[in-house]
Amino acid sequence: MTAARRRRFWGWGWEGEGPAPEQQEAIAQLLAARFDVPVPEIAAPPRLEELRLPAPRVRPPAALAALVSDAPHDRAAHTYGKSFRDVVRALRREFSHAPDLVAFPRIEDDVRALLDWAATAGAAVIPYGGGSSVVGGVEADVGDRYRGAVSLDLSRLDRVLEVDRASRAARIQAGVLGPALEEQLRPHGLTLRHFPQSFEFSSLGGWIATRSGGHYATLYTHIDDFVESLRVITPTGTIETRRLPGSGAGPSPDRLFIGSEGILGVIVEAWMRLQDRPTYRAAAAVTFSEFARGADAARAVAQAGLYPANCRLLDPGEAATAGAGDGTAAVLLLAFESADHALDPWMARALALAAEHGGAVPPGAGQTKRTEAGAREGAAGAWRKTFLDAPYLRDALASMGMVSETFETAITWDRFAAFDEGVRAAAGEALRRVCGAGQVTCRFTHVYPDGPAPYYTVLAPGRRGAELEQWAEIKRAASEAILALGGTITHHHAVGRDHRPWYDRERPAGFAAALGAAKAALDPHGILNPGVLIDPCPS
Amino acid sequence: MTAARRRRFWGWGWEGEGPAPEQQEAIAQLLAARFDVPVPEIAAPPRLEELRLPAPRVRPPAALAALVSDAPHDRAAHTYGKSFRDVVRALRREFSHAPDLVAFPRIEDDVRALLDWAATAGAAVIPYGGGSSVVGGVEADVGDRYRGAVSLDLSRLDRVLEVDRASRAARIQAGVLGPALEEQLRPHGLTLRHFPQSFEFSSLGGWIATRSGGHYATLYTHIDDFVESLRVITPTGTIETRRLPGSGAGPSPDRLFIGSEGILGVIVEAWMRLQDRPTYRAAAAVTFSEFARGADAARAVAQAGLYPANCRLLDPGEAATAGAGDGTAAVLLLAFESADHALDPWMARALALAAEHGGAVPPGAGQTKRTEAGAREGAAGAWRKTFLDAPYLRDALASMGMVSETFETAITWDRFAAFDEGVRAAAGEALRRVCGAGQVTCRFTHVYPDGPAPYYTVLAPGRRGAELEQWAEIKRAASEAILALGGTITHHHAVGRDHRPWYDRERPAGFAAALGAAKAALDPHGILNPGVLIDPCPS
Repeated sequence: MTAARRRRFWGWGWEGEGPAPEQQEAIAQLLAARFDVPVPEIAAPPRLEELRLPAPRVRPPAALAALVSDAPHDRAAHTYGKSFRDVVRALRREFSHAPDLVAFPRIEDDVRALLDWAATAGAAVIPYGGGSSVVGGVEADVGDRYRGAVSLDLSRLDRVLEVDRASRAARIQAGVLGPALEEQLRPHGLTLRHFPQSFEFSSLGGWIATRSGGHYATLYTHIDDFVESLRVITPTGTIETRRLPGSGAGPSPDRLFIGSEGILGVIVEAWMRLQDRPTYRAAAAVTFSEFARGADAARAVAQAGLYPANCRLLDPGEAATAGAGDGTAAVLLLAFESADHALDPWMARALALAAEHGGAVPPGAGQTKRTEAGAREGAAGAWRKTFLDAPYLRDALASMGMVSETFETAITWDRFAAFDEGVRAAAGEALRRVCGAGQVTCRFTHVYPDGPAPYYTVLAPGRRGAELEQWAEIKRAASEAILALGGTITHHHAVGRDHRPWYDRERPAGFAAALGAAKAALDPHGILNPGVLIDPCPS
Repeated sequence: MTAARRRRFWGWGWEGEGPAPEQQEAIAQLLAARFDVPVPEIAAPPRLEELRLPAPRVRPPAALAALVSDAPHDRAAHTYGKSFRDVVRALRREFSHAPDLVAFPRIEDDVRALLDWAATAGAAVIPYGGGSSVVGGVEADVGDRYRGAVSLDLSRLDRVLEVDRASRAARIQAGVLGPALEEQLRPHGLTLRHFPQSFEFSSLGGWIATRSGGHYATLYTHIDDFVESLRVITPTGTIETRRLPGSGAGPSPDRLFIGSEGILGVIVEAWMRLQDRPTYRAAAAVTFSEFARGADAARAVAQAGLYPANCRLLDPGEAATAGAGDGTAAVLLLAFESADHALDPWMARALALAAEHGGAVPPGAGQTKRTEAGAREGAAGAWRKTFLDAPYLRDALASMGMVSETFETAITWDRFAAFDEGVRAAAGEALRRVCGAGQVTCRFTHVYPDGPAPYYTVLAPGRRGAELEQWAEIKRAASEAILALGGTITHHHAVGRDHRPWYDRERPAGFAAALGAAKAALDPHGILNPGVLIDPCPS
């Protein structure tokens, strides 16, 4: 037995992981050069003993005492998600809205008992999976209407309960994190292949509750399509949908809970559709002199019915950051994968389309490689490590006083050019005004036949002590542009609290009324994740 | 100008279409031989002047008078959908629950005005698209709680309003029927390619409201995935969802209305995702000595990531009926199509999988054929005519006193063998008990990686005057088996009134509560399609 690693309470990942002090110094030097500012000082991370957590306001009955913790590390670790705003507040030692208690149900009945008690006690309950929310989705800052707030951590519900090899599906507990899930599926030759950037520290239930976007750049973009059935504990009872490959019996019950962000019930189990572990893979990188030409190529590929696993377009800035270009060209990353067949005809056609739209295709690119089942992860390991390490880097940047944010959306192709121009202009103008400098870059994380999902990253030197206000102003400018130009306020990061003002305008009023009514029926005391998605109207 | 054709008021299709008297005689002879019964007499179709329609109980204000009709043909034609039960009742001249009025809104404001008036007048409103429901979804038999019932016929909202070629999408009025829709898309080189058997007489809005199953046997099986956004008039206001290729902003608003069968609002417009008209096509028919082996092959193809447009498995009986076999072998119909590329590698792999599972692949089968855009319909015209003529035949069978029904479902692969055996046994036993004879056949209309959608057809000689009771007993036996063995009560025929007893058990109680609450929020007086999906709880 090795000593158990402990999660950092204030930011991303494991204690002791992330860039070492000397790496951080080097990054600070680079930033100073990049933005022509003095070398930033690096703020010390908070220590538990520095925090002043308010005394817990609620206590469960003795029968539930073993399920809850008021340990400072637990409470601090469940105070925030993992957004830029969360990390800055943590660096400021602001933990005044820590949950009163953290509950760790071991079985489904525990969830039921905890909800019953919370309703009686007048406490809010915040379902908590991996805690990777970047939109204020797991905060305990629930206002004075509640006598307390309990973070409901589902991490002990972490098992694959049943595997159906014939249908390629499994019944899985919602609290399992990405790596443990894949580990349990591996002996069956199966995989969920859902790899959001949060993979290491996000849970199946969290993915479903937030409509997480995963590995596949086309076709199966969201977790939504992999949900075969759900089991949900609501304050008024348990809901289990029937396990079916497809149905037309009324509006889909699953779809009401997919994306419900914990306001309707606690997802405790799901039957998920799985994949065979791929053994064929073909990948290629095509460069374009202009992002717009690359977008045309991505559209052509998305509309050709080829369904690549990867079809990610990086603008020149993103390509340079990812080590996939020199900063002068856009790069389209294409990949096909299969457990069944070689992919040369698929890739050949995609590359032909890319070339037709002005892409430079490297000679010999895109040949199918045969890999042992599972070995694909090794081959793509370098990129994957960069991708998975990015959140550690983001925290380091925050500790240097940088303002950073990623925002993502989707838009139809007819409007994309004007949309991209307008969003970049709005974000760039806000960066200049608020921070004096800064960069905006974009990539497509997913593409559809009818439009792309552009993902923007902003980075700017902040003013110590004003980073949150600066962040808010940049976020506001970008979000206003997205809404005005026809996009969605989130393609896969979810709504939480941070996107509420724009979600409230994007969402039709009639749907808000229907959703509020559904919530009142399932959660009559409004105890579940208040403030997320809608304002509760408790009876 | 040719004289306008008129729809038959009592059954499928146009007046004057369907099997001619001498063809009907021949069919009657065949049936007598097939089931060893006397040659059935053919009941005369009802004539309008034979019907006794109750006097209309409600009248709209003068401002709306031009939008409504109380003409006997209109009222009779809107009394029923097109199920076996509907046709038998029509043949019996039972029209006592004809709607009081039929409204024909010309613009969206008319819909709003009609809903306002109906709420005030205490009248139920039954949204009516093409009237092709086979589940009692458009009946005006709403009970005494209402002072009347109005069938809201959307057929005048029949235009494609806007086409976005870049995103391959169009804004379309909900009342347009299949042929008129395709006609309007053709000049743009686009198609919805949604071809349910009801295609000629079903509407876009009806497809969306009932989660219609269409042309594609894999991947895009239901209309659901082609909906980009919706515009819905509810009694409390208009809901328009944002036009987006994808989103993760809360539970999908569209998915609440997709499958809502007219109980939440009237769908008046949708932005739909379209296809380029295919110009490459590869098709093949593979025979199997056993249905179960064909099912294994269909599963392998569905799980291989090939996404064929057709992957329909016919059991020996269905194959013989469709002219695709001699009644001793099952047949798997495979087809790929594309507007972008030749399909030989796709088809070659699918045929290899079929052969691996014991299929007999004809030499040279499955080569890609290049067709002029649109010519594909011509090539497959014969099969398509048979497919589209089937409902006429069904009506003719009903007029001969035959009992017939189709019921369809979906089930995961692990349970399919036992499911199929159990459902056939239950239906077969009921047929023998109730009718003394009869046949049950099955095909897969759609297949998923995690299971097939089996579609069963039953046909038996009925007892004159007792057909409805016989039908009900067979339907009950089949539905009970479907539910008990884990299937869904409907994969794409919808719930309506006929499937309510089983839908009520399939649907989780908590979802019923949420759906009922959503309905109460949008339709507080419970005027919309009462009795379908749920029982209204009006305020």
